[in-house]
Amino acid sequence: MTESKWVYSFGGGAAEGKSAMRNLLGGKGANLAEMSSLGLPVPPGFTITTEFCAYFASHDSNYPASLRAELEAALTKVEDIMGLKFGDASNPLLVSVRSGARASMPGMMDTVLNLGLNDETVKGLANASGDERFAYDSYRRFIQMYGDVVLGVEHYHFEDILADHKDDNGLAFDTDLEAKDWKAIVNRYSDKVESELGKPFPQDPNDQLWGAISAVFRSWMNNRASIYRKLHDIPESWGTAVNIQSMVFGNMGDSSATGVCFTRNPSTGENAFYGEYLVNAQGEDVVAGIRTPQPLTIAEKEFNQTDLPSMEENMPILYKELCDVRDKLENHYKDMQDMEFTVQDGKLWMLQTRNGKRTGKAALKIAVEMSNDGLISREEAVKRIEPGALDQLLHPTLDPDADRQIFGKGLPASPGAACGKVAFSAQDAESMVAKGEKVILVRIETSPEDIGGMHAAEGILTTRGGMTSHAAVVARGMGRPCVAGAGQMNVDYKARTLSGSGVIIHGGDIITIDGSKGEVLLGKVRTIQPELTGDFGVLMSWVDEIRLLKVRANAETPEDAKTAVKFGAEGIGLSRTEHMFFDPERIIHMREMILAGDEKGRRQALDKLLPYQRDDFVNLFTIMKGLPVTIRLLDPPLHEFLPTKDDEIAEVAEAAGIDATTVRARTAALHESNPMLGLRGCRLGIVHPEIYEMQCRAIFEASARVSKDSGQTVVPEVMIPLIGSKQEYDILHNMVQRIASEVSEEAAISLEYLTGTMIELPRACLLADKIAENAEFFSFGTNDLTQTTYGLSRDDSGSFLEHYQDQGIFEYDPFVSIDHEGVGELIEIAIERGRKVRSDIKLGICGEHGGDPASVIFCHQMGLDYVSCSPYRVPIAKLAAAQAALKDEQFIDA
Amino acid sequence: MTESKWVYSFGGGAAEGKSAMRNLLGGKGANLAEMSSLGLPVPPGFTITTEFCAYFASHDSNYPASLRAELEAALTKVEDIMGLKFGDASNPLLVSVRSGARASMPGMMDTVLNLGLNDETVKGLANASGDERFAYDSYRRFIQMYGDVVLGVEHYHFEDILADHKDDNGLAFDTDLEAKDWKAIVNRYSDKVESELGKPFPQDPNDQLWGAISAVFRSWMNNRASIYRKLHDIPESWGTAVNIQSMVFGNMGDSSATGVCFTRNPSTGENAFYGEYLVNAQGEDVVAGIRTPQPLTIAEKEFNQTDLPSMEENMPILYKELCDVRDKLENHYKDMQDMEFTVQDGKLWMLQTRNGKRTGKAALKIAVEMSNDGLISREEAVKRIEPGALDQLLHPTLDPDADRQIFGKGLPASPGAACGKVAFSAQDAESMVAKGEKVILVRIETSPEDIGGMHAAEGILTTRGGMTSHAAVVARGMGRPCVAGAGQMNVDYKARTLSGSGVIIHGGDIITIDGSKGEVLLGKVRTIQPELTGDFGVLMSWVDEIRLLKVRANAETPEDAKTAVKFGAEGIGLSRTEHMFFDPERIIHMREMILAGDEKGRRQALDKLLPYQRDDFVNLFTIMKGLPVTIRLLDPPLHEFLPTKDDEIAEVAEAAGIDATTVRARTAALHESNPMLGLRGCRLGIVHPEIYEMQCRAIFEASARVSKDSGQTVVPEVMIPLIGSKQEYDILHNMVQRIASEVSEEAAISLEYLTGTMIELPRACLLADKIAENAEFFSFGTNDLTQTTYGLSRDDSGSFLEHYQDQGIFEYDPFVSIDHEGVGELIEIAIERGRKVRSDIKLGICGEHGGDPASVIFCHQMGLDYVSCSPYRVPIAKLAAAQAALKDEQFIDA
Repeated sequence: MTESKWVYSFGGGAAEGKSAMRNLLGGKGANLAEMSSLGLPVPPGFTITTEFCAYFASHDSNYPASLRAELEAALTKVEDIMGLKFGDASNPLLVSVRSGARASMPGMMDTVLNLGLNDETVKGLANASGDERFAYDSYRRFIQMYGDVVLGVEHYHFEDILADHKDDNGLAFDTDLEAKDWKAIVNRYSDKVESELGKPFPQDPNDQLWGAISAVFRSWMNNRASIYRKLHDIPESWGTAVNIQSMVFGNMGDSSATGVCFTRNPSTGENAFYGEYLVNAQGEDVVAGIRTPQPLTIAEKEFNQTDLPSMEENMPILYKELCDVRDKLENHYKDMQDMEFTVQDGKLWMLQTRNGKRTGKAALKIAVEMSNDGLISREEAVKRIEPGALDQLLHPTLDPDADRQIFGKGLPASPGAACGKVAFSAQDAESMVAKGEKVILVRIETSPEDIGGMHAAEGILTTRGGMTSHAAVVARGMGRPCVAGAGQMNVDYKARTLSGSGVIIHGGDIITIDGSKGEVLLGKVRTIQPELTGDFGVLMSWVDEIRLLKVRANAETPEDAKTAVKFGAEGIGLSRTEHMFFDPERIIHMREMILAGDEKGRRQALDKLLPYQRDDFVNLFTIMKGLPVTIRLLDPPLHEFLPTKDDEIAEVAEAAGIDATTVRARTAALHESNPMLGLRGCRLGIVHPEIYEMQCRAIFEASARVSKDSGQTVVPEVMIPLIGSKQEYDILHNMVQRIASEVSEEAAISLEYLTGTMIELPRACLLADKIAENAEFFSFGTNDLTQTTYGLSRDDSGSFLEHYQDQGIFEYDPFVSIDHEGVGELIEIAIERGRKVRSDIKLGICGEHGGDPASVIFCHQMGLDYVSCSPYRVPIAKLAAAQAALKDEQFIDA
Repeated sequence: MTESKWVYSFGGGAAEGKSAMRNLLGGKGANLAEMSSLGLPVPPGFTITTEFCAYFASHDSNYPASLRAELEAALTKVEDIMGLKFGDASNPLLVSVRSGARASMPGMMDTVLNLGLNDETVKGLANASGDERFAYDSYRRFIQMYGDVVLGVEHYHFEDILADHKDDNGLAFDTDLEAKDWKAIVNRYSDKVESELGKPFPQDPNDQLWGAISAVFRSWMNNRASIYRKLHDIPESWGTAVNIQSMVFGNMGDSSATGVCFTRNPSTGENAFYGEYLVNAQGEDVVAGIRTPQPLTIAEKEFNQTDLPSMEENMPILYKELCDVRDKLENHYKDMQDMEFTVQDGKLWMLQTRNGKRTGKAALKIAVEMSNDGLISREEAVKRIEPGALDQLLHPTLDPDADRQIFGKGLPASPGAACGKVAFSAQDAESMVAKGEKVILVRIETSPEDIGGMHAAEGILTTRGGMTSHAAVVARGMGRPCVAGAGQMNVDYKARTLSGSGVIIHGGDIITIDGSKGEVLLGKVRTIQPELTGDFGVLMSWVDEIRLLKVRANAETPEDAKTAVKFGAEGIGLSRTEHMFFDPERIIHMREMILAGDEKGRRQALDKLLPYQRDDFVNLFTIMKGLPVTIRLLDPPLHEFLPTKDDEIAEVAEAAGIDATTVRARTAALHESNPMLGLRGCRLGIVHPEIYEMQCRAIFEASARVSKDSGQTVVPEVMIPLIGSKQEYDILHNMVQRIASEVSEEAAISLEYLTGTMIELPRACLLADKIAENAEFFSFGTNDLTQTTYGLSRDDSGSFLEHYQDQGIFEYDPFVSIDHEGVGELIEIAIERGRKVRSDIKLGICGEHGGDPASVIFCHQMGLDYVSCSPYRVPIAKLAAAQAALKDEQFIDA
């Protein structure tokens, strides 16, 4: 470490770094270096590395000895390129100090702009720019920002002074303030800092610089950055880099501007230049959403039906220059870029480029089009789509034919439709969601503090800010629908109302938002299923060519089965037969069965259930057209089927011809301390074989019928749950075979089927070789396997899961993503032992992990034959499977 | 198999078999052969091997071709020795057909006696014996037995005929019946068989013989034999042998007799000849307990205060001959023998010898005395004691000073005292026990059908039968106290009463029995602790020299700790701190803590608990005098400490100064679906660190104080429960160290302690290497590890455990004896991984398996350092550990 190079310079058409050095320089620093090398107009600067971040943290916020010299050398280089001197009283070099981590964390860490201004240099800046108002405005912005970020003088102190000054002088807008106003405010800001801290605002630009560097590095560990990292699986050890760059000003009059643009539309993926800019403004004004920005292009202007002049009209030459930058960067990076630029007095400066965040829909369109255009390969296109991002494409959107009562309109900031109760604070949103409610978070504008609430909400609505406002960017990243900048609406936090068009919505009222159109609607609006053709269909066809893992769906109703087929499921991996018993006309027989005093009574009730159950399977087999269907025999404890409320008990008692006391007594007798570990799964089949016998009969009678009717062989896979020993399995395996041969004889048809088990207990994993002697397939029930391996109830872990994630005990919720170390090793053991005895044993998983991309990759690595997940997640699982296969190729290539 | 020898002859001072061929010939057959070879007077016969049993079962009850010839040759040899012919009408050879398995299974299988009698040979027997009455009595016994066992004509048919005949002829006792009566009865028996079966009673002795052989072999699979095997872990595959032996008669008048004797007293172990006999009786009369037998020796006669003449007085020459046999057999077998003999017309015949069943107390005395006498080695003495048999020595006996209201007296058939509610049938006993009640089973006499009820009962009382009656033998085997043959009492099954001395006891009333003295007492009588000196102390000193595994006790109260020390525990392996919070003056603070709304409130309540908890540990450390003490931090879910009844809730609410609704709400909030898998164990320590902090402070303050006061270093072992990951462990490990160093500084003393964890989750086993990086010891919590590995709740498995044992899914209850395949493998993995990282990691188990001999052997094999069990089971665990060590030596020797 003593030989480390801590500082990398860029600017003037050259750079010490490059984009491949992202881990060391952070995304922003690496790309500034790359842009410099490409000859793009980048304000010169230098990057302090992420390695320094670790040094700083582990050395009690001290600097390594060599840093000062390196930094001074780099600063001199900047001064040389700009022809300015840092701290020069006549025409000072000003710099920005910004964080820049390996992964983008928008707005999570701190930034200081206009650094280098003091009571002397401000005069130099006024002289050099010929704009005293600009100079003092810059200085007050600097004091405010530095005061807040570095010195810890809270924001509101400065806001109050500014507001007081306006009130005292009858001024309404910032633009009304003149140089003398800003001078006065600078003085009052300086006094406030001194009175708060007991010492004056630092005047030495070098002190300012070191203070800002420390503060920005420290902000890596602040609370909102930690939360963001947790939400996005960014390791703390990565650290951030810090970029010190010469300031350029978009607020030096009408020939100056600042903007943010995307090489393609980040919302739709359309191959059209897209962005926003503000004349005479600093970049923060665009990003923070304080002023509603202007469209970049004429096309956008028309699309958004605004009168604000576009850059294309307003600054045609600079716009043309920017278009060239766009082409150069996209061709260079071969991905959609998100750029920041500033125009200072007629000259274009590029402040940042990075791969742009985009909606799932846009990601899909961009990847498919870039591949079709030969810019990237099909494999690369498949790799480009975050599987989780498909989620937003696979969920319902508003039915265009549904009645809509439009209440207001904003920007279509993140696509998809959502519906929920209005919450006016992140905290409210979180606590309502904790109670099981669906929520739309409604804010004037959002800030990084709102992240938790945004994550909890179904959708987000803001009345201020543009397409690149905090709310819009974060919502797209999270896949939440968002309508931003709905300016004709009014939020009153105190009264907890949202008003507009003469209607008042209160907290808790239901609204619907359409993030694709920017519409806000009253009440709940009907939704429709997404289209799965077009770009989606193309990508999925590539995915299907690449992946090795098959993907099935968990489904039991005809509706679910149809959805599964539509989403491309290659069979049903888990059909939970217990879900078939809750229909009112069935549950009564189910209860009759449970309440029967003896086997004879149970068999009578089961005889009544048989035709229903058989019809269920006839439906499933017919819909699945010969694809494999795995049917799990009854799994939950019987008391789940019994009523608990008095009126229901009375009803059941009457129907069963017994008294309520008996029903209550039987329910009490079935009560268990730990039902998860009680009389359920195959234990029911051992104790009451007649239940499983009925189910097997229904399966085989249905398969015989559908095979005869369709002429296509139906091959059901009969799955016995919760097996813990070979003996258990063999007893029930023999039962399945016995019933199959009975039905085969009765129906005079030879039946094809597999018999296997769910592997969901640690003991089953360890004894997999014994169980595999007769079991023809294993389906890992990772929900229960996680519960038993961890000794952790999914239903009960909510009370401490957060503590566990906060303290870093769980990196992720093990019920969402498979725990590789514990559960994963058991799965590995089971696979190895199972295959040793039966080399062609069919292996799959059917826990909810089947739809989690990280878990799908794990399943691919384990060499499973298939995963099974909810129908809506089938394409996600397929994409993750394809990416896992591509990862293997990478290793083979290497 | 085609070359198998199926038949082994014995008799006439020679034999083809020997006692070492027990597996092939069964215990009875092997010992009959051995006795023959020793020159003892054994009626000649032959044994059909246990291999035949397997052949017979797997060949659909067919015989191998070579059997007939072998059997005929063997029968001829018997005829030659006896000088009689089988089926000879003038003086027929009669034979018995008896089962004889590798392990003794008294009364579980069938027997046929007097075989070879028919309408012709009975006349020959009458002539030859000169006793027509005897001949026809023998014939009717044969028809009755053969009818029942071979032909399936139930017993009561014959009983009815006999009773009718007596009534019709005004006869009271069997002895009142004369030859003509038995003749008439033989005719009626024969008619009954014919009318029941539609064909006559078989007259051909060869048909009789083959029928009996098949029936006896088949009886290996009967229901009571299966139950017995399950209770005694005897594999079905062993099979039984069948012995065909020439009959000798103890019922040929007053110069004939039959008896059962033991070379030493099977109840006390005293080195005194001991037995019972009956003049003019067949062996079954003694064993079945139908007639109350006479003592063998004068000493016994005096001890039992009976007037019945002893054999020593009555048949002094034969008695002397029997004493010689006793000496010869005990010196030959080097173990206490249980022999059966018959005197036929003044000649002694030995019918059986085997190692005698004995009480734990007797086993101990015999082993120690035989070793002291040089008959066996100390190691052999240690091997001789079944660890489970010690149990009866370690439990309380009646306090001799307690008030006793003696209600009746019987024979001291199995030692120990027991107290419970009277049940008059095995079924009643079982269902009362299932409800959690303690039961004394009261029967006129017991039969093999009663085994389940005897097992369930605390003790057994019979009003008929002797020391070798079914009740007595089985009770001793099971370690249940038993008073047998309490003849002055009267049982009325219909009225459900036990009466005597003018008192009437009803079903459900409480009585106490003293199996060591044969007393029956009214109500519940105070008990005292057993003496642990004498033979017990001698044996345990040998055990301590041999064993390698250390044995600790699970204890938290001073009483338990003192008991642990008394029983020789080498430390405390599990001190469950939650048991310390239920005292009325503590529970209130515990509840205050749980009901507190915030950490501050919790800390206030915990501060009040600290002094109590500290005192607990001061006590424990003082009692344990420097032995290691493992303290488990709080483990159960908090709701276990909260009240559920309305009045208690009101009380708590008042004490805590809140309203009942709040208490109820908090209780409801703490409710969990599966508390076993919920917020408990170390999860409490993560979520509410203040609880564990208080406990650690109490531990270390106590250890500091006791170390100072006693001058002896106290080394507590702090155990963190329910660890599932390294992160969890490390956070809490650091907490323990922090508190220790705080206390160390405050008390100005350096503290020694270990920090470790309970390994009780499958994930902890798999991640043992990671956890061992900081953990200094592992204690396997095999209760919870069994629950999670099997996904099986101990509290809820009762509803199906029986089904699982009946269907052979569980060979034994996995909560009683460690499951080697599943749980065992996880333990093995954890040991291997833990030792890889920390070679000197201390390893033990503290689940209830720690006191189960089979599990102790497993722990020894796994190389654990110690087991911990309930104080009463410490000697059992020590003995099992010594036997495990001896087993190793055997392998080394071999």
